[in-house]
Amino acid sequence: MTGSEMDDRAGWRPVARARTYELVIDRIEEQIVSGQLGVGDRLPPERDLAQMLGVSRAAVREAFRALEAQGVLRMAVGTGPDSGTTVAALPSQALTRLLRLHVALANFPMADVVRARIMLERESARNAAQRATEAELEELRELLDEMDAPDCDRERFNDLDTRFHVAIAEAGGNRLVADMTIAIRESLRRPLLAAFDDLGDGWFPIADDLRHDHRLIHQALLARDAADAEAQVERHIRSFYRSAWLQDLG
Amino acid sequence: MTGSEMDDRAGWRPVARARTYELVIDRIEEQIVSGQLGVGDRLPPERDLAQMLGVSRAAVREAFRALEAQGVLRMAVGTGPDSGTTVAALPSQALTRLLRLHVALANFPMADVVRARIMLERESARNAAQRATEAELEELRELLDEMDAPDCDRERFNDLDTRFHVAIAEAGGNRLVADMTIAIRESLRRPLLAAFDDLGDGWFPIADDLRHDHRLIHQALLARDAADAEAQVERHIRSFYRSAWLQDLG
Repeated sequence: MTGSEMDDRAGWRPVARARTYELVIDRIEEQIVSGQLGVGDRLPPERDLAQMLGVSRAAVREAFRALEAQGVLRMAVGTGPDSGTTVAALPSQALTRLLRLHVALANFPMADVVRARIMLERESARNAAQRATEAELEELRELLDEMDAPDCDRERFNDLDTRFHVAIAEAGGNRLVADMTIAIRESLRRPLLAAFDDLGDGWFPIADDLRHDHRLIHQALLARDAADAEAQVERHIRSFYRSAWLQDLG
Repeated sequence: MTGSEMDDRAGWRPVARARTYELVIDRIEEQIVSGQLGVGDRLPPERDLAQMLGVSRAAVREAFRALEAQGVLRMAVGTGPDSGTTVAALPSQALTRLLRLHVALANFPMADVVRARIMLERESARNAAQRATEAELEELRELLDEMDAPDCDRERFNDLDTRFHVAIAEAGGNRLVADMTIAIRESLRRPLLAAFDDLGDGWFPIADDLRHDHRLIHQALLARDAADAEAQVERHIRSFYRSAWLQDLG
């Protein structure tokens, strides 16, 4: 092996032990986080990478598949410029998906999830008050009008409610904050629907409160009043939590 | 082939057909998010699940492997009570890992990442001022003392700095907020180290500023002054951003 070949291979050290494909995943991720591999970059062919890492081709293939399933790699057959295994621009959806699973499985106390939500939605509301376009503000109004429709049942209400909060996050313009906000809000879709159902007929006055809160948030955004938008969002989330879970956040 | 036939074909790109194992992953995740499958629950054996979903055993096996690599499933061989494929308590590390990849690949503007960091660390600092134990406050002090050591180089400084901010997030007691804070801070480890290096000798006075900022944050936590802790953390992050990237966050 020549010196320059060694240099080329310097980033790839052979791996040590069992669950080999997980170690291959670690190596690939190291290269991404260190900036050696960026979006669109091609990975070495399966056979070469297996040799460099001192593992079987099957282990490399499994690692590729697992990373593809997570949206980190893109695999394409053929011989064109897009063929082979390349690093993908991880879609926002991948983060939303994992955060939703995380909230479903990690058994965080509901109060902690709600506090995280308040933090994120305050930030989004402040940003949206400063940056939302006229079209975005109009879209928010349309969602609220749909929630006013007499035939809007709890499930549809919950969907529109989710979309209202997600649209504010999008209008805030900070993609990372929006991604986290969306993930938390999506993770709450089912618990919130269950809470709506548990309320029985008690849902009707609470839905009216929620409609009223949403209008106040919308008005604060229209007025470009960032402080008021933040405050209204926090009051809204706290007040629903109190009504539905009969507890104070403290 | 006529010209118009060619035009017709031009509009036809191959469909982005989801691979079978990705559809199996979707089904499993649906069951988790809907609460039908919880931590510790066992999945049907590979053969049965393949039959129920109308897919090949290979597709089920690949889906299991991909979800195992993400920490969602746990696979164990044998016949004991722990054997088979069960739902795992997704470790915090899985979220941190994905968020770090997400920040590395998604190419968020640095200013947006820093703003998200301020939001998260303000929340953590406020919580820590209220909840940190004496032992946690002492651990923070020890980290700061280590950063004062004359032989502390930039890389070690950066590691200790990361640990200081992570320890505050842990002391805040909201696991979800801590996980997000840690993920963002970890994703910044390398860009921050690069920024330290780029500063050349300019690093020394800035490192002194950072040490001073850290002491002020620590004092606010010791004084159990939540408002001051939040304010000091924000001032610290903004001031370093200004020094290292020569820009204002606005």
